[in-house]
Amino acid sequence: MAEKSSHPAFVVVLVEPKNPGNIGAVARVMMNFDVHRLFLVNPCELDSVCYARAMHATSILDRAQIFSTFQEAVQGLDYLVATSSIESKTEKRHLRNAVLLDEFSEKTLEVSGTIGLIFGREDYGLFNEEIAACDIMCKIPTSESYPSLNLSHAVSVVLYSLYLRNVYIPTKRRDLGAVEKKKLYEFFARLLDDIDYPPHKKANTKIMFKRILGRAMPSTWEYHTLMGVLSKTLSTIKKTQRKK
Amino acid sequence: MAEKSSHPAFVVVLVEPKNPGNIGAVARVMMNFDVHRLFLVNPCELDSVCYARAMHATSILDRAQIFSTFQEAVQGLDYLVATSSIESKTEKRHLRNAVLLDEFSEKTLEVSGTIGLIFGREDYGLFNEEIAACDIMCKIPTSESYPSLNLSHAVSVVLYSLYLRNVYIPTKRRDLGAVEKKKLYEFFARLLDDIDYPPHKKANTKIMFKRILGRAMPSTWEYHTLMGVLSKTLSTIKKTQRKK
Repeated sequence: MAEKSSHPAFVVVLVEPKNPGNIGAVARVMMNFDVHRLFLVNPCELDSVCYARAMHATSILDRAQIFSTFQEAVQGLDYLVATSSIESKTEKRHLRNAVLLDEFSEKTLEVSGTIGLIFGREDYGLFNEEIAACDIMCKIPTSESYPSLNLSHAVSVVLYSLYLRNVYIPTKRRDLGAVEKKKLYEFFARLLDDIDYPPHKKANTKIMFKRILGRAMPSTWEYHTLMGVLSKTLSTIKKTQRKK
Repeated sequence: MAEKSSHPAFVVVLVEPKNPGNIGAVARVMMNFDVHRLFLVNPCELDSVCYARAMHATSILDRAQIFSTFQEAVQGLDYLVATSSIESKTEKRHLRNAVLLDEFSEKTLEVSGTIGLIFGREDYGLFNEEIAACDIMCKIPTSESYPSLNLSHAVSVVLYSLYLRNVYIPTKRRDLGAVEKKKLYEFFARLLDDIDYPPHKKANTKIMFKRILGRAMPSTWEYHTLMGVLSKTLSTIKKTQRKK
């Protein structure tokens, strides 16, 4: 998918994978679906088992980028997608409030930029602070009685879903503005401070704001416009408060 | 999927699998997608590696039916689907002339009966006479440069595609609040007035706000939270402006 510049480019990010075979299996299925960039956060050794499982995709392992922290791995990516087959039951818990994989795949038709697909640990998945750092949480629908997919199966299903939607020629895509996004979230946080928003609600409301925009995937231009509104709001409040 | 009588029942048939780990991985992903019947044609031993990979799906291995020939395995099934990620180039070779997985999955919505999903050998796939015995050949779209999926990945993708169509009834979690939406747009318009937003930009910015939220499809609860933030913003501005 990365070849065609108008498509979003996908990077598979595995967070602390423990099983070398899984990493190899992930590399193989990445090549099967034309995704070539693999980021590994604090992984186990890429041993002979790992390479054997990769079959004809060893080049993906050779070129995999290894990071010691989640933060370092994701800092250059435009848009972060936390993947999970487990979903929170209550809607108010914005952190794990997810969109379905299929919905997400359809939306990526419209954007360009680099999208990080984040897959958690084999045993503990993603930690809350890692999920909070993501723009969106994407749920793979699975059985309620046994929802937990094997790591490489989760990657298979996600990449298949994206491949289906993205392999066909896309229309005009929106450019995901990573820098603008960060600034907008900062502005929103400042707004909550300035309007004396109830402190115990702040964290949750910030995550909600992130999730709503995550689902909307705004363009750079839309981010700029939203920032314009927010910055004028902040300065209006500041100006009038200075006069007190 | 077998539980609900209106749905077709699926049986996964693995033809001469050679790798015990693959069989275990297939059992796991079957349970992840609520398919419980596994037929094995002349398989390798279901050893400890196989059971370890099955994780919480060992019951599927315990109840797997083992056959010595393909013919015996499929004789009780209503409809046979040969799966492959490799397709013949020439349309005249009807034998391997395939429908896309997605198309097939959609069609199974309309049928009931027992459908056998046939997966070939890790190395040689399905033989021509086996494909000829099937009612349909179903192609998983994959990269032209490396089309061959790992066995359990192929099963993952096929079962996911069927699961989506046949079982998963999306819980209408995000109930679009039409009244709330209207009110939110009004609040946003008021905000633009209160912060002296450039008049010639107003109409466009309002439309953009609508489009972003339209794409995000917020829930009623998310609308309420956003309105809370906006109404507190408006009252903060009002309060301070009154003091001028």
